[in-house]
Amino acid sequence: MSDINKVVLAYSGGLDTSVIVKWLQESYQCEVVTFTADLGQGEEVEPARAKAEAMGIKEIFIEDVREEFVRDFVFPMFRANTIYEGEYLLGTSIARPLIAKRLVEIAEETGADAISHGATGKGNDQVRFELGAYALQPGIKVIAPWREWNLTSRETLMNYAQEHQIPVDFSKAGKKSPYSMDANLLHISYEGGILEDPWSEPEEDMWRWSVSPENAPDQPTYIELSYEGGDIVAIDGVRLAAHEVLAQLNKVGGDNGIGRVDIVENRYVGMKARGAYETPGGTIMMRAHRAIESITLDREVAHLKDSLMPKYAELIYNGYWWSPERTMLQAMIDQTQDVVNGVVRLKLYKGNVTVVGRQSDQSLFDDRIATFEDDAGAYDQKDAEGFIKLNALRLRIAASKGRKLK
Amino acid sequence: MSDINKVVLAYSGGLDTSVIVKWLQESYQCEVVTFTADLGQGEEVEPARAKAEAMGIKEIFIEDVREEFVRDFVFPMFRANTIYEGEYLLGTSIARPLIAKRLVEIAEETGADAISHGATGKGNDQVRFELGAYALQPGIKVIAPWREWNLTSRETLMNYAQEHQIPVDFSKAGKKSPYSMDANLLHISYEGGILEDPWSEPEEDMWRWSVSPENAPDQPTYIELSYEGGDIVAIDGVRLAAHEVLAQLNKVGGDNGIGRVDIVENRYVGMKARGAYETPGGTIMMRAHRAIESITLDREVAHLKDSLMPKYAELIYNGYWWSPERTMLQAMIDQTQDVVNGVVRLKLYKGNVTVVGRQSDQSLFDDRIATFEDDAGAYDQKDAEGFIKLNALRLRIAASKGRKLK
Amino acid sequence: MSDINKVVLAYSGGLDTSVIVKWLQESYQCEVVTFTADLGQGEEVEPARAKAEAMGIKEIFIEDVREEFVRDFVFPMFRANTIYEGEYLLGTSIARPLIAKRLVEIAEETGADAISHGATGKGNDQVRFELGAYALQPGIKVIAPWREWNLTSRETLMNYAQEHQIPVDFSKAGKKSPYSMDANLLHISYEGGILEDPWSEPEEDMWRWSVSPENAPDQPTYIELSYEGGDIVAIDGVRLAAHEVLAQLNKVGGDNGIGRVDIVENRYVGMKARGAYETPGGTIMMRAHRAIESITLDREVAHLKDSLMPKYAELIYNGYWWSPERTMLQAMIDQTQDVVNGVVRLKLYKGNVTVVGRQSDQSLFDDRIATFEDDAGAYDQKDAEGFIKLNALRLRIAASKGRKLK
Amino acid sequence: MSDINKVVLAYSGGLDTSVIVKWLQESYQCEVVTFTADLGQGEEVEPARAKAEAMGIKEIFIEDVREEFVRDFVFPMFRANTIYEGEYLLGTSIARPLIAKRLVEIAEETGADAISHGATGKGNDQVRFELGAYALQPGIKVIAPWREWNLTSRETLMNYAQEHQIPVDFSKAGKKSPYSMDANLLHISYEGGILEDPWSEPEEDMWRWSVSPENAPDQPTYIELSYEGGDIVAIDGVRLAAHEVLAQLNKVGGDNGIGRVDIVENRYVGMKARGAYETPGGTIMMRAHRAIESITLDREVAHLKDSLMPKYAELIYNGYWWSPERTMLQAMIDQTQDVVNGVVRLKLYKGNVTVVGRQSDQSLFDDRIATFEDDAGAYDQKDAEGFIKLNALRLRIAASKGRKLK
Repeated sequence: MSDINKVVLAYSGGLDTSVIVKWLQESYQCEVVTFTADLGQGEEVEPARAKAEAMGIKEIFIEDVREEFVRDFVFPMFRANTIYEGEYLLGTSIARPLIAKRLVEIAEETGADAISHGATGKGNDQVRFELGAYALQPGIKVIAPWREWNLTSRETLMNYAQEHQIPVDFSKAGKKSPYSMDANLLHISYEGGILEDPWSEPEEDMWRWSVSPENAPDQPTYIELSYEGGDIVAIDGVRLAAHEVLAQLNKVGGDNGIGRVDIVENRYVGMKARGAYETPGGTIMMRAHRAIESITLDREVAHLKDSLMPKYAELIYNGYWWSPERTMLQAMIDQTQDVVNGVVRLKLYKGNVTVVGRQSDQSLFDDRIATFEDDAGAYDQKDAEGFIKLNALRLRIAASKGRKLK
Repeated sequence: MSDINKVVLAYSGGLDTSVIVKWLQESYQCEVVTFTADLGQGEEVEPARAKAEAMGIKEIFIEDVREEFVRDFVFPMFRANTIYEGEYLLGTSIARPLIAKRLVEIAEETGADAISHGATGKGNDQVRFELGAYALQPGIKVIAPWREWNLTSRETLMNYAQEHQIPVDFSKAGKKSPYSMDANLLHISYEGGILEDPWSEPEEDMWRWSVSPENAPDQPTYIELSYEGGDIVAIDGVRLAAHEVLAQLNKVGGDNGIGRVDIVENRYVGMKARGAYETPGGTIMMRAHRAIESITLDREVAHLKDSLMPKYAELIYNGYWWSPERTMLQAMIDQTQDVVNGVVRLKLYKGNVTVVGRQSDQSLFDDRIATFEDDAGAYDQKDAEGFIKLNALRLRIAASKGRKLK
Repeated sequence: MSDINKVVLAYSGGLDTSVIVKWLQESYQCEVVTFTADLGQGEEVEPARAKAEAMGIKEIFIEDVREEFVRDFVFPMFRANTIYEGEYLLGTSIARPLIAKRLVEIAEETGADAISHGATGKGNDQVRFELGAYALQPGIKVIAPWREWNLTSRETLMNYAQEHQIPVDFSKAGKKSPYSMDANLLHISYEGGILEDPWSEPEEDMWRWSVSPENAPDQPTYIELSYEGGDIVAIDGVRLAAHEVLAQLNKVGGDNGIGRVDIVENRYVGMKARGAYETPGGTIMMRAHRAIESITLDREVAHLKDSLMPKYAELIYNGYWWSPERTMLQAMIDQTQDVVNGVVRLKLYKGNVTVVGRQSDQSLFDDRIATFEDDAGAYDQKDAEGFIKLNALRLRIAASKGRKLK
Repeated sequence: MSDINKVVLAYSGGLDTSVIVKWLQESYQCEVVTFTADLGQGEEVEPARAKAEAMGIKEIFIEDVREEFVRDFVFPMFRANTIYEGEYLLGTSIARPLIAKRLVEIAEETGADAISHGATGKGNDQVRFELGAYALQPGIKVIAPWREWNLTSRETLMNYAQEHQIPVDFSKAGKKSPYSMDANLLHISYEGGILEDPWSEPEEDMWRWSVSPENAPDQPTYIELSYEGGDIVAIDGVRLAAHEVLAQLNKVGGDNGIGRVDIVENRYVGMKARGAYETPGGTIMMRAHRAIESITLDREVAHLKDSLMPKYAELIYNGYWWSPERTMLQAMIDQTQDVVNGVVRLKLYKGNVTVVGRQSDQSLFDDRIATFEDDAGAYDQKDAEGFIKLNALRLRIAASKGRKLK
């Protein structure tokens, strides 16, 4: 354990990572650099500074990365209509690569030879942090305290904190949620507690970002989202930076009871786990993006994207954002988005996101062709006969030779 | 036009197909056999008999195919979590293969040499009818009046009806919806009219099967769906036939404002078209099936299913139900469903379908492993290090050789 | 038939397309522009000029497009290791998009309103020409004489030629191959004749570009191919233009009995057809490209390419080169090729292409890690245990719950 | 190390696994059960008995599993035309699941609580053995000596053997190949030695199963393979058991210089490795199976199989034979093979396998339709126009709206 001199730690300022600071200092006899990111989790990040200083940290990095997060990670992911296992919008998964990148960059800046994080040995986040770090800096060392130490219960952890005079915010600890939570601008997640029984419905007071549909306003809210190159650039005509878009959609979505999901998902490390998520803005973006694509993308392009989406989602879920296969798919996805421009009009009402209009200068929708009325020659119905006949040919040959369908 | 002796027509009893009866008798000088199916469209089918008789039809087939429809077509499709272009539950598409099959069978029974249908030359349904018919009976002839005749506007059609003394139900014609509609137990669809402008929101009175979320009850409804082999066999513990399941889910879904979608979709014949759909029961089934699979299916099986679903959906949408590639995929899908047994608990509320519980004797969810608390050795967190290290190896080698991620 | 004023015809100078010139002039009373391309088919193109002039053609385009053909069509296709149905290197398919593009461009230049070609109504080539033309110029009209006229046997065609004083090269007609052939720099194809029986072996004298393995030299030939960005830029260290590369590989490949295949393939129009092909250079390129990729591409990138290759091959075979889905896939494929640089050494011997060496500055092969000898810490074998344990976890959970593998 | 009582070892009788016997007895103080399988590796298996007895083994299993191996593993794999990374026929990969299964079964029979094998910690085989074992018996323990001990060089291993009086066959050790080899009825593989430099060509005397094309007979050999349900059941009309088929094809293939490949492949554990393989019979089977499928399989079925083959190959290569995703794919593949019946005629000559004929009672090849001559109405060429027009529609709409192809 002696060859580590300096470690960059992903530090939230909370109890667990504060314990890690101490434990690293003690076990590895090394210097600790803390990195605290504002990803839009909704908690102040500055208080982390005083705590770090109190533990003797000399190099403290506290950064607002919200714009980068949404612009370079969330938005590219939404261009693919990405959803994991039909339900999960990857709110946690997509934040990890950014943190991994900054940890590695800060290690380089500060001359650190290792990074550390507070993810457990059972979850996906350790994989996401570490794959990212290794991909960006192959020589980096990684310390994952939860896989090494024996502070594996809440009690032993609290004892360690007390023994080492780590300030525990008891008022907060007293209110401590029974759930393990993670938040950033895209979502807040809940695991553990009552959720470990997949037959239990979460209690209403678990949810933090959205009102329930029951408590949402009785009047719908209409919004218009403007797209350029597949990304939202304005809400109701007001141009916004990427993270402002998402923040505003979270607000209006949460107010209207939108974006709660409650699922059992398959972790990369091999077990099933129950998770509850609030993704108000993301839920709106998903539906809106499909709507703007519905009029601007070619059919076969859209279908090819759909067929590759599960793979792309799996890569992000499993921690392969920083991989050549993800960038390869991204190149393809991005190539399709130049034409994804226009406006989508949405109705938000008690948990429902309904697309009520879509328009685009680059629309491929042509009402002269689709119409039920006479289309003045734009489409010759007789062509359909040949189309069907040749598409049927192989089926007819097979049937004529006595081949039966099973 | 002289080599056709007898034609089996998919006959709804409405104006359009009544005109087709006359037109076939007149243009082809052939006998017409009518086939009218009760697919759960919510309209009486028996009145079609009197109308057919009045036009001199001697062989009239009127059949209740609701159970076969749901059991052999809808349920198999839902085993794959099938959804077209992210939004459409294929309500129209899945009914056509059954009709095609019966048309061909009746042709055989009655010694007819052709079949006919009332689908236009611009839509998908002509393709679905005809591919199915050709696949099942390669020598069959197909007459598609809309591609042949010149009765291409409502006016010419009405004139033809009057000239030929086809009884037009003017009270109904007076109330006639501006929309082209199609219904069966899985859904009701709307096209045309105001929908031809993708920026227009449909008016509330267009929708027929569901109340709006605004008008749905203020109290949620909870239901429990029991699965066997991937299919729902009981609601709230009461065993039901397949079509009864769907009918009941339509009722409870429609009452709770569930299942409306409004999309622009890509037709197989090459153009984009706006469609609005009500699929109350199907919307519930989709979410519930994913939920029961979430605890019973292996991860890789689930992901493989997800990656092939778009292809499977495309096949059904495009009319290839009766094809060896669809049966091939079906064999694979069905093989995975033996273990998809258990119960899903759902909350229905003003348009929302929320999964609030799932349980199964064959659940792969293991709370001893996923727990945040100590798991008594069921999982060794140290294994994660090797897992990550080897998964990272190719990425590290690439980075160590100076390879940059784009 | 009167609204066509000028037609650009893909004109080979042979009998069939000469008949088409006359037939167009006569049936459509329109002016004909001829386009004759040197794609490396191995026949002089200039003679087409005199023939065209003799038939009164005023606008004659004769062009050497060999470099463009190989650089912009063949090479991009080989970057994907493209092969149709496991055997066919798409030699005919890949030439059609270039011809379609030039036909449309020449139509624009000359003010023509239609294009025409000599492909029959049963084959793939009509589709490839026409899809390409429509995609590039949606208003273009297409005349496909073989689908219109009644000159459907060799005899009627010859009679028409005689009646219209079209000079038939009887010495050539006398030697006329019983096969329908097509050639360009990538391959020569044979269809028809004895090949219509899939049990018949083609006679040795059918083949034109290669000696049989039996007649190839008894000494092997070694060559080295240099790659940059996935394309071959030099043979044995001598830099060459794209078409020179292919021409030279055809020569050395054909001399060594390489590149014959004899298959039954599935046409896009729905039937199976027998084809025999000689693709000497392409066969060498295919194997060499896989070899250079084997040391330079990341594993997951290579596998993703492999999984999408059948789709990409199908697009090209079916005539969708000029489509957004092909360009979308191409963007992805090309993005992977920056690193595909290096040299492949091959042994050519009596029909065999054997890779005997590959090297690259960007090789990811690391002999320190793969070695069976001690690797001085570059790889910790103990990591494998955790890797296996976690990859097995889902399988173990399933088995522990009594789940049986079928 | 004390909780293991009895271990079943995959025992070849060679030096390495003999050392493992001793090392297990010594390190784990446990009883060892040996399992030696005749997979067609071409070496006697009985001598293993005496060696095992000499080391005090009481439970010795020596089994001829050749038929099971080819019938239940090799043949099912070939139904999918399986090939890894475009070149490798998976000869080693496909043998491991059978061994894993027998190890676990023998453990059950003998009351052993662990299994062991001689695969190193850097290769794929450890993964294949262990994933299989865990999937079939989740509670089994696995001892992988190469990941545990420090006998990591040939020298330390030889010393250990001498110290423990393990009989080393010095005559054999003296002739010892510089290559690490593995053999079974499907192939023999070579790794290590000079192959660790991907630029080096293997020396001729490395190869053991085939003559070089140079040394193969100057006369071709013709054979006919009869298929039933996708499997070969007879050679030249003589019915044979599965393993006899493969043995005979190995003989005739090897005699004709067929089946050598030399590649750099991507291992599942993350590094690239050079391998050389001789797969004479497999090379013949691959080509023949595609040929019989070419006339009996529907186009879309064939293409769907092709698109999933890379995934299927990857599963087998990575060790997931015993997994629900492999059995799921197998169900799909097998469903397609009922119709794959008939005869393929092949010419074998100096490394070349050429298909020269294929016939089947279930052939979908229809010469009346594919012919260049008049087909008497079986196909209406005019249908092609509508087919093309509608397939082009989306492309034309896009182009007419100014959309450019990139």
